[in-house]
Amino acid sequence: MANTDDDRRPKYQRIADSLREAIQSGEYGPGDRLPGENDLMAAHGVARMTARQALSVLKDEGVAESRKGAGVFVRSFRPLRRRGIQRLSQEQWGSGRSIWSADIENRTLVVDQVAVSEEAAPERIGQVLDLGDGETVCVRRRRFVLDGKPVLLATSYLPTSVVAGSAITQEDTGPGGTYARLAELGYKPVHFREEIRSRMPTKDEAEQLSISAGTPVILICRTAFADEGRPVEINEMTLDAASYILEYDFDA
Amino acid sequence: MANTDDDRRPKYQRIADSLREAIQSGEYGPGDRLPGENDLMAAHGVARMTARQALSVLKDEGVAESRKGAGVFVRSFRPLRRRGIQRLSQEQWGSGRSIWSADIENRTLVVDQVAVSEEAAPERIGQVLDLGDGETVCVRRRRFVLDGKPVLLATSYLPTSVVAGSAITQEDTGPGGTYARLAELGYKPVHFREEIRSRMPTKDEAEQLSISAGTPVILICRTAFADEGRPVEINEMTLDAASYILEYDFDA
Repeated sequence: MANTDDDRRPKYQRIADSLREAIQSGEYGPGDRLPGENDLMAAHGVARMTARQALSVLKDEGVAESRKGAGVFVRSFRPLRRRGIQRLSQEQWGSGRSIWSADIENRTLVVDQVAVSEEAAPERIGQVLDLGDGETVCVRRRRFVLDGKPVLLATSYLPTSVVAGSAITQEDTGPGGTYARLAELGYKPVHFREEIRSRMPTKDEAEQLSISAGTPVILICRTAFADEGRPVEINEMTLDAASYILEYDFDA
Repeated sequence: MANTDDDRRPKYQRIADSLREAIQSGEYGPGDRLPGENDLMAAHGVARMTARQALSVLKDEGVAESRKGAGVFVRSFRPLRRRGIQRLSQEQWGSGRSIWSADIENRTLVVDQVAVSEEAAPERIGQVLDLGDGETVCVRRRRFVLDGKPVLLATSYLPTSVVAGSAITQEDTGPGGTYARLAELGYKPVHFREEIRSRMPTKDEAEQLSISAGTPVILICRTAFADEGRPVEINEMTLDAASYILEYDFDA
């Protein structure tokens, strides 16, 4: 397809395409410096604005990123692997381990900005949790930071009627976390639903996650169900898409 | 947080924030026309460029979209729900139904641009399918179009040594599709792995999927395993993120 298509395309686009191919083929690896504006001007006989536009295309796609004063570099993509199913198995949280332990490998994942409060339930939450009029929820907000980079924002909603007086209403939920406490309260999570979407971040999300230009967020809404299909928690997560691979393994 | 934060922000950002809030609260619903540049200039006492920037913020986020000559509208988000686990269950494909049937509800999903060929295996594919040197793959490319809008590109790779001579090498794989044929060949898929990422589309992907500005793609790489963990198919999918919600349901 190269030639016929190429001829219709603006010059900056053709330069961007050739750089992208060089990245995909491995000629430029993650973290490598790409040719600068001057290099591209000389190599392709184009004006500075054209060279700049070509680099902008790759930055807008999230393939490359500028570093101040140093040039444009191939983005490193060394994501966390989040295993949706194994990580929620009872063996994992039943034995007091964090449900995050499977993801971290040898990297340091820190939870910060933990805030717990009792609030009126947003309408969408009240509907899914099947709350009565005026019933409140315990809201747990926190941020996950990997190797110094924020990667995930999470907000959990649990019915106050279920969790009142338990460690779930404290910053530190204790060994095994929220799900171990729910089990002790008689609401052991036995089924999960995860719904996944992706879109561009809002300004606030981009700031909180230090997201580079041209990078979407992945939204995961997880609902935990106790026996008889009783919904006991909704966890709305916002992930830096450049930091995660989600994995689901299941039998036919 | 409204006031202290707001005061630091540029005017166009504050206008964008107020429009976004009006959208989130339902004041402007999907498909509704947003106030135009003239409206925003009058309402906020700003210059045209500021009004334009405010609308651009929402377009870059994928929240709104321009329609030529008609103004800026709230994006409709009426996605397909793709159920990752139930849809692959044997009852589904074992009885000859399409694995897509759960997703379509009353809408028309059409497969087009089907192309089948025998090719050298790309390195990443050869590694996962555990192919020997020079072993080729059957490559099935196709596009899924919903109500006239392309929503998904899919490329499946299967070892030629497994599928040669079967209907899998034809455009029409017959009732139950590829997985029913694999079962007949003695390679019934019994386990699946789906890996999910999200990033901005390449120019080619944006064209093939008619993707609006400010909209990412979701990548799903599905590997199907037969007995004894034998990998028999890799399906690399590229989805218009504005067209899909992925759902995974599973027990603890």
